[in-house]
Amino acid sequence: MPFVTVKLLEGRSDEQKKALVEKVTEAVSETAAAPKENIYVIIEEIAKEHLGHAGIRKSDQ
Amino acid sequence: MPFVTVKLLEGRSDEQKKALVEKVTEAVSETAAAPKENIYVIIEEIAKEHLGHAGIRKSDQ
Amino acid sequence: MPFVTVKLLEGRSDEQKKALVEKVTEAVSETAAAPKENIYVIIEEIAKEHLGHAGIRKSDQ
Amino acid sequence: MPFVTVKLLEGRSDEQKKALVEKVTEAVSETAAAPKENIYVIIEEIAKEHLGHAGIRKSDQ
Amino acid sequence: MPFVTVKLLEGRSDEQKKALVEKVTEAVSETAAAPKENIYVIIEEIAKEHLGHAGIRKSDQ
Amino acid sequence: MPFVTVKLLEGRSDEQKKALVEKVTEAVSETAAAPKENIYVIIEEIAKEHLGHAGIRKSDQ
Repeated sequence: MPFVTVKLLEGRSDEQKKALVEKVTEAVSETAAAPKENIYVIIEEIAKEHLGHAGIRKSDQ
Repeated sequence: MPFVTVKLLEGRSDEQKKALVEKVTEAVSETAAAPKENIYVIIEEIAKEHLGHAGIRKSDQ
Repeated sequence: MPFVTVKLLEGRSDEQKKALVEKVTEAVSETAAAPKENIYVIIEEIAKEHLGHAGIRKSDQ
Repeated sequence: MPFVTVKLLEGRSDEQKKALVEKVTEAVSETAAAPKENIYVIIEEIAKEHLGHAGIRKSDQ
Repeated sequence: MPFVTVKLLEGRSDEQKKALVEKVTEAVSETAAAPKENIYVIIEEIAKEHLGHAGIRKSDQ
Repeated sequence: MPFVTVKLLEGRSDEQKKALVEKVTEAVSETAAAPKENIYVIIEEIAKEHLGHAGIRKSDQ
């Protein structure tokens, strides 16, 4: 621990995901004084059909 | 915020998911006095192989 | 299943939480064609110090 | 309730998942004094591209 | 990884929680062929006011 | 969206939590090309009694 879960819409490139894990780990390590070896980051991709904002799905906008 | 996550078995139609986002957003907005623009709903579908009840998976019933 | 998790800022009354569980259950039952006996709703309250939007915590706004 | 979520890397066999649901349910029932009928277990598989440890994704190791 | 989250109603003793972490870790290790050093278990206690089943909260039953 | 959840052991200062929200938001915005206004960060603190690693709780180590 710390365990970080990042939920975001589908569509990011592999390079973006690689950089996201690296930079988020750095940010958490630096601010929470946690050794990087203790930090896990999980990316959860959400399809447009499965994300609603203000009652409307991204796929219906 | 509020953020609502709805975990349910795979198999609902696109129309059902559309209505679910709409009606759940209304229900939360009405009861929690939260403007709809602040409400996000995420649907997470679970495969039968990945859901167990009383020790038995839905795929093994 | 379905399992619904509602994350929202601390501060709602007991009456609001009671109504939220009732209305969200109705909304999910009606739209996902799920018997109410299968539906669980969990409320998770978030403190202002623990919620950030656009990089700023609600407690620092 | 209890609701158990098990997040693990993709790749377990169907037999392993079947046994995991059974044994985890037993463990929770026995130690938390919860009837098995009240226990749900959800398996969430994570792709290697979506799991980072110490800033590096499993897919980049 | 694996990461296990166990959501259960408030009220278990410290001994029960200790045993739950131990037995759940054993069950996951044995069935998912995962070394115990890779397994994390998080207990999340839910208050009766925050858990609804079939539209009614445990605190209102 | 993106929604980021950071689970970490209880005990960080208010200043650490403030910086964590700021830096994690920056990291996600920069790498996932997401406007900061779309990014939410939730901190979830875990008590030592509720976190197990390799079958042993932090409170029992």
